[in-house]
Amino acid sequence: MASPDTEWRLDYAKMGGLIPAVVQDAASGEVLMVGYMNREAFDKTRATGKMHFFSRSKNRIWMKGETSGHVQEVVEILVDCDEDAVVFKVKQVGGATCHLGYRSDFFRSVDAKGALAMNGVPKLFDPAQVYGT
Amino acid sequence: MASPDTEWRLDYAKMGGLIPAVVQDAASGEVLMVGYMNREAFDKTRATGKMHFFSRSKNRIWMKGETSGHVQEVVEILVDCDEDAVVFKVKQVGGATCHLGYRSDFFRSVDAKGALAMNGVPKLFDPAQVYGT
Repeated sequence: MASPDTEWRLDYAKMGGLIPAVVQDAASGEVLMVGYMNREAFDKTRATGKMHFFSRSKNRIWMKGETSGHVQEVVEILVDCDEDAVVFKVKQVGGATCHLGYRSDFFRSVDAKGALAMNGVPKLFDPAQVYGT
Repeated sequence: MASPDTEWRLDYAKMGGLIPAVVQDAASGEVLMVGYMNREAFDKTRATGKMHFFSRSKNRIWMKGETSGHVQEVVEILVDCDEDAVVFKVKQVGGATCHLGYRSDFFRSVDAKGALAMNGVPKLFDPAQVYGT
């Protein structure tokens, strides 16, 4: 850990060039999603003020909202003590992060029996209309 | 993605047997830390109600608070749409997550110049007294 006063750099080496990025609604504190960033995605996010990630499946940088228009505008960036994880507080344009139309990717909880429960989370948009699939 | 009504299982394969676990203060919504879990750590966490992780550096399961006594008691478990990330809402015993004595591991923010700023975050305990180092 570098001390708070000295130079710092994110440690991308622990996970093959990637760090986890937790995206949190700046107003409500709700965790919206977890994505991964390489150095380029982090730098693009800082430079543009809009969340960019590295897609492990597509092997490329993508901007959240590039298809849906539901971009995430950066409000604050927090770094952990080990400098190997980042929290972004954001404003979610369009109100919904999840590609299924829910506010958060984490729209289900594990109940006492270990099953997934929805808890009446509302669907904010119709994926077929947004993504045309 | 499995539908909300069907059987589900966490996808540990994308990251070599691990999933990221975001730990969030159940009362304030503050993100306290990001850790990693293998299947055993997830199952131990569910069985005991206390947060367990897999340490990549020590290559073993550890319970948060096993040295400090500052355990994290599980309040709620949230699962994302892809079933490859988990959010745990917890009660942080002792009030501080970070081994440096801060409430959250994310006690620093990136300022406009790209430097890390402390923003007057209070230190809640003295690591030397807790860990004896």
